[in-house]
Amino acid sequence: MGLVTYKQLAEHNNSGSCWIAVGGTVYDVTQFIHTHPGGAKIILKEAGKDATSAFEAVHSVELLPRFDETVKPVGTLDKSSERLDSNDSSTAEADAAALRRAGMPSLGSVLNSFDFEAIARQTMKPEAWAYYSSGAEDEITLRENHAAFHRIALKPRVLVNVSHIDTSTTFLKQTRVSLPVYITACALGKLGHPDGETVLTRAAGARNVVQMMPTLASCSLDDMLNARVDSQDTWFQLYVNADRNVTRDVVLKAEARGCKGLFVTVDAPQLGRREKDMRLKYQEDISDIIVKTGGDEEGESSTSTGQKKVNRAMGAARAISSFIDPSLSWKDIEWLQTVTRMPIVLKGVQTGADAVQAAKLGLAGVVVSNHGGRQLDTCRSGIEILPEVVADLKRAGLHGKMEIYVDGGFRRGSDVFKAIALGATGVGIGRPSLYAMSTFGQEGVERLLDIFREELEMVMGLMGCTKISDITEDMVDASHLSTRVSLVRDMLHQTVYEPLQPPQFNRSSKL
Amino acid sequence: MGLVTYKQLAEHNNSGSCWIAVGGTVYDVTQFIHTHPGGAKIILKEAGKDATSAFEAVHSVELLPRFDETVKPVGTLDKSSERLDSNDSSTAEADAAALRRAGMPSLGSVLNSFDFEAIARQTMKPEAWAYYSSGAEDEITLRENHAAFHRIALKPRVLVNVSHIDTSTTFLKQTRVSLPVYITACALGKLGHPDGETVLTRAAGARNVVQMMPTLASCSLDDMLNARVDSQDTWFQLYVNADRNVTRDVVLKAEARGCKGLFVTVDAPQLGRREKDMRLKYQEDISDIIVKTGGDEEGESSTSTGQKKVNRAMGAARAISSFIDPSLSWKDIEWLQTVTRMPIVLKGVQTGADAVQAAKLGLAGVVVSNHGGRQLDTCRSGIEILPEVVADLKRAGLHGKMEIYVDGGFRRGSDVFKAIALGATGVGIGRPSLYAMSTFGQEGVERLLDIFREELEMVMGLMGCTKISDITEDMVDASHLSTRVSLVRDMLHQTVYEPLQPPQFNRSSKL
Amino acid sequence: MGLVTYKQLAEHNNSGSCWIAVGGTVYDVTQFIHTHPGGAKIILKEAGKDATSAFEAVHSVELLPRFDETVKPVGTLDKSSERLDSNDSSTAEADAAALRRAGMPSLGSVLNSFDFEAIARQTMKPEAWAYYSSGAEDEITLRENHAAFHRIALKPRVLVNVSHIDTSTTFLKQTRVSLPVYITACALGKLGHPDGETVLTRAAGARNVVQMMPTLASCSLDDMLNARVDSQDTWFQLYVNADRNVTRDVVLKAEARGCKGLFVTVDAPQLGRREKDMRLKYQEDISDIIVKTGGDEEGESSTSTGQKKVNRAMGAARAISSFIDPSLSWKDIEWLQTVTRMPIVLKGVQTGADAVQAAKLGLAGVVVSNHGGRQLDTCRSGIEILPEVVADLKRAGLHGKMEIYVDGGFRRGSDVFKAIALGATGVGIGRPSLYAMSTFGQEGVERLLDIFREELEMVMGLMGCTKISDITEDMVDASHLSTRVSLVRDMLHQTVYEPLQPPQFNRSSKL
Amino acid sequence: MGLVTYKQLAEHNNSGSCWIAVGGTVYDVTQFIHTHPGGAKIILKEAGKDATSAFEAVHSVELLPRFDETVKPVGTLDKSSERLDSNDSSTAEADAAALRRAGMPSLGSVLNSFDFEAIARQTMKPEAWAYYSSGAEDEITLRENHAAFHRIALKPRVLVNVSHIDTSTTFLKQTRVSLPVYITACALGKLGHPDGETVLTRAAGARNVVQMMPTLASCSLDDMLNARVDSQDTWFQLYVNADRNVTRDVVLKAEARGCKGLFVTVDAPQLGRREKDMRLKYQEDISDIIVKTGGDEEGESSTSTGQKKVNRAMGAARAISSFIDPSLSWKDIEWLQTVTRMPIVLKGVQTGADAVQAAKLGLAGVVVSNHGGRQLDTCRSGIEILPEVVADLKRAGLHGKMEIYVDGGFRRGSDVFKAIALGATGVGIGRPSLYAMSTFGQEGVERLLDIFREELEMVMGLMGCTKISDITEDMVDASHLSTRVSLVRDMLHQTVYEPLQPPQFNRSSKL
Repeated sequence: MGLVTYKQLAEHNNSGSCWIAVGGTVYDVTQFIHTHPGGAKIILKEAGKDATSAFEAVHSVELLPRFDETVKPVGTLDKSSERLDSNDSSTAEADAAALRRAGMPSLGSVLNSFDFEAIARQTMKPEAWAYYSSGAEDEITLRENHAAFHRIALKPRVLVNVSHIDTSTTFLKQTRVSLPVYITACALGKLGHPDGETVLTRAAGARNVVQMMPTLASCSLDDMLNARVDSQDTWFQLYVNADRNVTRDVVLKAEARGCKGLFVTVDAPQLGRREKDMRLKYQEDISDIIVKTGGDEEGESSTSTGQKKVNRAMGAARAISSFIDPSLSWKDIEWLQTVTRMPIVLKGVQTGADAVQAAKLGLAGVVVSNHGGRQLDTCRSGIEILPEVVADLKRAGLHGKMEIYVDGGFRRGSDVFKAIALGATGVGIGRPSLYAMSTFGQEGVERLLDIFREELEMVMGLMGCTKISDITEDMVDASHLSTRVSLVRDMLHQTVYEPLQPPQFNRSSKL
Repeated sequence: MGLVTYKQLAEHNNSGSCWIAVGGTVYDVTQFIHTHPGGAKIILKEAGKDATSAFEAVHSVELLPRFDETVKPVGTLDKSSERLDSNDSSTAEADAAALRRAGMPSLGSVLNSFDFEAIARQTMKPEAWAYYSSGAEDEITLRENHAAFHRIALKPRVLVNVSHIDTSTTFLKQTRVSLPVYITACALGKLGHPDGETVLTRAAGARNVVQMMPTLASCSLDDMLNARVDSQDTWFQLYVNADRNVTRDVVLKAEARGCKGLFVTVDAPQLGRREKDMRLKYQEDISDIIVKTGGDEEGESSTSTGQKKVNRAMGAARAISSFIDPSLSWKDIEWLQTVTRMPIVLKGVQTGADAVQAAKLGLAGVVVSNHGGRQLDTCRSGIEILPEVVADLKRAGLHGKMEIYVDGGFRRGSDVFKAIALGATGVGIGRPSLYAMSTFGQEGVERLLDIFREELEMVMGLMGCTKISDITEDMVDASHLSTRVSLVRDMLHQTVYEPLQPPQFNRSSKL
Repeated sequence: MGLVTYKQLAEHNNSGSCWIAVGGTVYDVTQFIHTHPGGAKIILKEAGKDATSAFEAVHSVELLPRFDETVKPVGTLDKSSERLDSNDSSTAEADAAALRRAGMPSLGSVLNSFDFEAIARQTMKPEAWAYYSSGAEDEITLRENHAAFHRIALKPRVLVNVSHIDTSTTFLKQTRVSLPVYITACALGKLGHPDGETVLTRAAGARNVVQMMPTLASCSLDDMLNARVDSQDTWFQLYVNADRNVTRDVVLKAEARGCKGLFVTVDAPQLGRREKDMRLKYQEDISDIIVKTGGDEEGESSTSTGQKKVNRAMGAARAISSFIDPSLSWKDIEWLQTVTRMPIVLKGVQTGADAVQAAKLGLAGVVVSNHGGRQLDTCRSGIEILPEVVADLKRAGLHGKMEIYVDGGFRRGSDVFKAIALGATGVGIGRPSLYAMSTFGQEGVERLLDIFREELEMVMGLMGCTKISDITEDMVDASHLSTRVSLVRDMLHQTVYEPLQPPQFNRSSKL
Repeated sequence: MGLVTYKQLAEHNNSGSCWIAVGGTVYDVTQFIHTHPGGAKIILKEAGKDATSAFEAVHSVELLPRFDETVKPVGTLDKSSERLDSNDSSTAEADAAALRRAGMPSLGSVLNSFDFEAIARQTMKPEAWAYYSSGAEDEITLRENHAAFHRIALKPRVLVNVSHIDTSTTFLKQTRVSLPVYITACALGKLGHPDGETVLTRAAGARNVVQMMPTLASCSLDDMLNARVDSQDTWFQLYVNADRNVTRDVVLKAEARGCKGLFVTVDAPQLGRREKDMRLKYQEDISDIIVKTGGDEEGESSTSTGQKKVNRAMGAARAISSFIDPSLSWKDIEWLQTVTRMPIVLKGVQTGADAVQAAKLGLAGVVVSNHGGRQLDTCRSGIEILPEVVADLKRAGLHGKMEIYVDGGFRRGSDVFKAIALGATGVGIGRPSLYAMSTFGQEGVERLLDIFREELEMVMGLMGCTKISDITEDMVDASHLSTRVSLVRDMLHQTVYEPLQPPQFNRSSKL
């Protein structure tokens, strides 16, 4: 491949002939722009330019040539050639970022996990904030996830010697962790921080908690694994690909490189409608592309009315959805059991019946989760489902055969305590770790974990518990989980939350 | 009839002698103004003018000579004669409409059914908005209708192959539809769109859903039926007239022209108090007309106190109420069974007891409905009543003998899913279709139906259902429908809703 | 008694020698100012002046000489003598009143009972508004009174011939009324309208409903009785005086002049803390008077700590409280049975147990009431207590032996319907009648009653009821009265309500 | 010790050599600044100055030399020496205080306990307000404490002679009090008033109620005891020190000086996170001090991750926490029984089980309390726990063997009534007494107690009770305490409450 100058590159800046440079290589993506899951416009914005930083913001560089067979390298970018001022936009973005961070509170002022969210909301790039913070449709379940904890009351015991409190526990019978908390898998870490998911890996290592590494990370799996400290256990989260060979390869690689658990996402046969994300994307002018399409691309089936239009501008969420296979079923789980010796855990179980089925298959566990309220709106919170799962497993004589994890809405040490009391082995933290990462980087994530530990220690002390196994069901009044009646209204969480809005009028437009 | 010039017409511009031109004919309505259900003032505003557009906004032109025997044609309008500038008001209205629509968001920005409502609220004529959006009295039931869905939680199953999802179903054992959704009957479509209900007919045809055609349409029944595409099934909604012969004629006509179901409205022996509508009408200065009247006109009986005053300015709702007969009873239903072979469905049933009675009569179905919260305030939502209806029919051994439809507050695909899970065959959509029509016309209504389909497909996929018959009762937790305790507070619906207000002071008036 | 000129009167304008003229007579009230239940300051404002209008605003003129033996007439006011400009304040008040009423909406714009309240709030004298609108302490019960109706859902029946609807009923087995609604007793009618309670008498006569005439009316009993139309039945509300002879006299007079029922208030052994009223009075500068007092005046007992201070500035409510006897007990009721043949009804019963006791005594009825939320805060609403009363009477075999009335928070025809369905014979309307009177006088009260009738007729028609006896318990779902969970949040009522405020800082004051 | 001039003192104004003068003595605190529980910065602000007033704001002067063995007196302050203008800050503080109190409402305008809070919020020093008003974490329990009372409805009985009402009762079988209310122990009284807790002592004496004297008072125990009037009974609240000899000494002293009860705090093995307090402290710039520390200082244990950082700037609350021993257990209670003959009461019991344990040990009572919502968030209110405690004691056959006190959220006389009805002997008042003290001093506290008495008298009268023993369980409907459903929303309490906020951006900072 020959050298391509910036000037030559710039000549292919349209849908007729579209080149982009990524990681020093120039690619012809003319055909690919029409099949790009994220839509054509987002590529055309970068046409004729060095798109490395834009690309890396959401993908690992190594991914590009694998994206599609139509993507063809045409040469090596001649970085010594004369640059055009095409990267004005990145300067403008840097200015905007500085403006957003002006006067930002220091890490020392952060008292709780909500503070990270409040700061992130004001300092993150709008599209990153929209992708991380959005939930499905009316965001009922998104908010319910945290609200449910205010329906559980603590019943503290007094006069217990709590001079020494130990928050450590064991996950999947093999990993000793400092806290019954892990960092759960979230996609597109580079939206929030240039180093992406490796920030989380390093913070998890520093604080001796487990990170669950995502399939849809913006860093490569190798980058994340290489960021581990010695003896740091991690898990791998799996989206099963339509091509099972791709899945087999990645699972075997994860196991070979020492991952200690395989968490198979089972609640995302297709992606949910995250309208805050969609709204923003539309406003950013990439939504006018309504293309005709047939069939079942992106998991959308055709209907009996025949032809249909599909709005491609579904936000960052939809851009990654083609990696997901809607045909995933219990048979695939059995197949995975033949592929790997890693303990297999189903991520996204929402009924006692499915947990029982998992236990019957001899799986290592389930994560009771509604995917952070991002998939199906008006479903129950993980913490509300937890007692049903425990009860059904007991009824089936399978309680204790399998570990139960839970995520969704955990924001306080007391939330963690409540989940343990109701039968969970561990608790996944998602958005708070992203907000901490996006605002203060690794130091922020470490502080977040410290806050969880400090709060949990304090709660344990005030509850009369000195170790995790002291935490028992009779220490909480969870009778209101099912009646849906809360203690008094939460205010801080509500203050930090950004409400949904209908589309806005552009009243300055001329008549 | 001779020609009447604009100048001659303009001379009869008062209550002493009142002429109006409609559809090219000039009528003397001097006597009619005092018996007009909508009040005299609304006619006097048009006195001496060509009132065609004002008339068509609420009525079909062919209706006028049939309104009342006192309405007499006096000539043909000479359109070549010199126009007076009496139609300034329509120019002003056009300007106002343009102003309201300035900067209006595009159809592409509409993500959900609420967005149509948000845009309609800002762009519709105030009186049209007031008529469509208003509910009875405190609008408790109006809001309860949607709020009730947030008391039902979804319980998704995982690891089901959902590659192919089919949302189609069959209505009244004969009509295959693309969705378990129909467009329900709403009066006065021309308030929102110049083409009125035919817009809905065409959109229904394009998307293969059923439209229920209203008795009180502003288009004629023929107009609507002519707007059908080949093989498009439609239903006819019936308000039974005090003159049963009128009713017999219209029913026979509907059947002859191929309507596939007769939906008899049974919840409107008189019209409810829609105060948002009344408030606006009053402010528009047509309410000072307090006329003395005796008897039971408009369904209002005299009281033991004898004489009374009736405020005629009850908004658009009251203007059409005289077509409704308060004496309608079960005997009339039995009579209708002798008149037509169309399947008969009762629209507006709110108790299990009445549903059982309908089943005993061998009717084809009931629509569990509170008339969109427009009739009786503080009654229950359709979705809350549905389980009572199913339980009572089961108890009576009549479950399955009759189809159950439901309407009121359906705004999301998940709402539709919940109704199916609780035993409904189909779901009626009212206001959303009017808002879509009023903002974006036929294209808007088609997009609305697409949104319902897309959302329902997504919910089915995430719930582990591939076809309508996969949707079962155990997939929802409806235990809170009866306890009235919701998941977290809905915010988007509440943002879009326009709260009621007391009458306003005119503080700029002089002392 | 000789003539007293305005100039002579004006010389006695201080606490050393204090004369006031009322109704043409000049009184020396020097001694009385220190024992006036409403405090000294309110009298001293009128010292040396013709206080007739100020006095009549709260009292009947005939009352003054009977107030206290220390009040002595000293002469007749010489109205031909030269006036001083001491009545500037009344001119200012007239200006303020005009300002408040500027741009006031017309009676025609009033659609419901809340509208009267909204207009009254802006147009009434602040002290009158404070006295009428205030409730006890946090006004929890005040608001609960109406809110409770939103916990009762209506279950309408369809296909009933409702061409003719009759809202009339019979009270106390003798009085045929047009509506199951009466105007209940409220004190100090002249605060809202110069003609006071006689306005209500006339409106009640015009609409054939019963007025309950208050002991603490600002008109005399004779004035009210003389305002009746022929054959107009009225009731008398009784506060039992510490001097039982006074009580005997007024009861015998009421009976002699044709009152058809004696409603004995039993929920006011002392008056509640109405802080909105107290707050206003304080701000009006009459609250600095903290006088030392012993004993049990105004129903306040001394405590074991001995001496205490009593704040006399307790608002209009406290000014009338000395007419009330805290020793009232069941024995007094038995005594009243020997005094009169009028049916005796206990007003203010709040438990089933007390209703049973009343029935055992053979009384004619009870009014289930919490005194409009003005006495004890956080007690239950009348409508919530009603089912307990019915159940306890049934259990005691006494149901049907006695009539049950209820008041508190009735604002809609549907509220009345619900009370009838739950077992009430009639419903008392308090504040709405005062607000209607204060804003539009007799015409306003008549319109209010018309609104109640129109709404009740409409509800009956939509529920499938043609007469009061058709209204049955199974037509309402009252299961949530006891669970306290409402339908969706009421908005109109909440908009009209004026929230309580803490005392305000005067930040304009100098440092 | 020689004389030290202001100038000499001022030379030791840094962390290298740090002197402060307190009470006329100059101390070298150079070593102490690094171990000061409140952090170094707060001392360094006073370095080289006469810190008496700053010190006395939180401590008793006599405490300083006892704080730490490293604190060494170096001389006597020569008050005749030339003053430097180092006390500008106290002048500025005085100006700020005057500004805050400008236009402050008079005591006469205070109608209820909320009014004191509303005025305190605006007039107190921000750090004092933050310390007093803050609760744990999201302040759910803080607000729940009062909200719970609105779930209890009163059921008044009528026709009881209530001419004479007696609110007096007996505490711990020995102390006759005017009210079933006591002033509970709160730390740091001098933050609110220069005379600190002695203000409360004097007011309690004047109104014949009991004060519970705190271990962590800012006045010395002697100061408080000396402020008693003759025959005034008081209690002593005990934080058990890690050094049991210190505890023995203070208990023996309290007993010797006539304290009538020993209330051992059992709900504070460590202090809760009061983030409002922490937020303020941080903003005041004393939070940058993050010091490395090992071990279990301040009750925080080390974790398995080894080294950790502790943020010392935890607000006033943490500054006093080192006096508290996390190892306190039931064995210590048994030891205390051997030390004193005072009745021992456990303060901070939150379960029936622990109350039963206390009764089994033969203790005199328990205080059902969550420490004013300052320790553990989302635990239940005292009033909600009370019925569980009564039921468990009855089940164990121990009811009546022990007295039950309760605190948390008591703001109205009706709240007190409800607690008595549910089985409490007395009720503790905390924050309201601090707010009354901080705004109006002793007179304010006396007025607060008068308001409680007036309200309780009124409630008793309206409920049909003439003495405390008339108050019975059947007079309240507490069925909603456990369902968590309230009467209508409280508004006044909510208006007065200051919501939590996330950290604020300093948007004026330069880019």
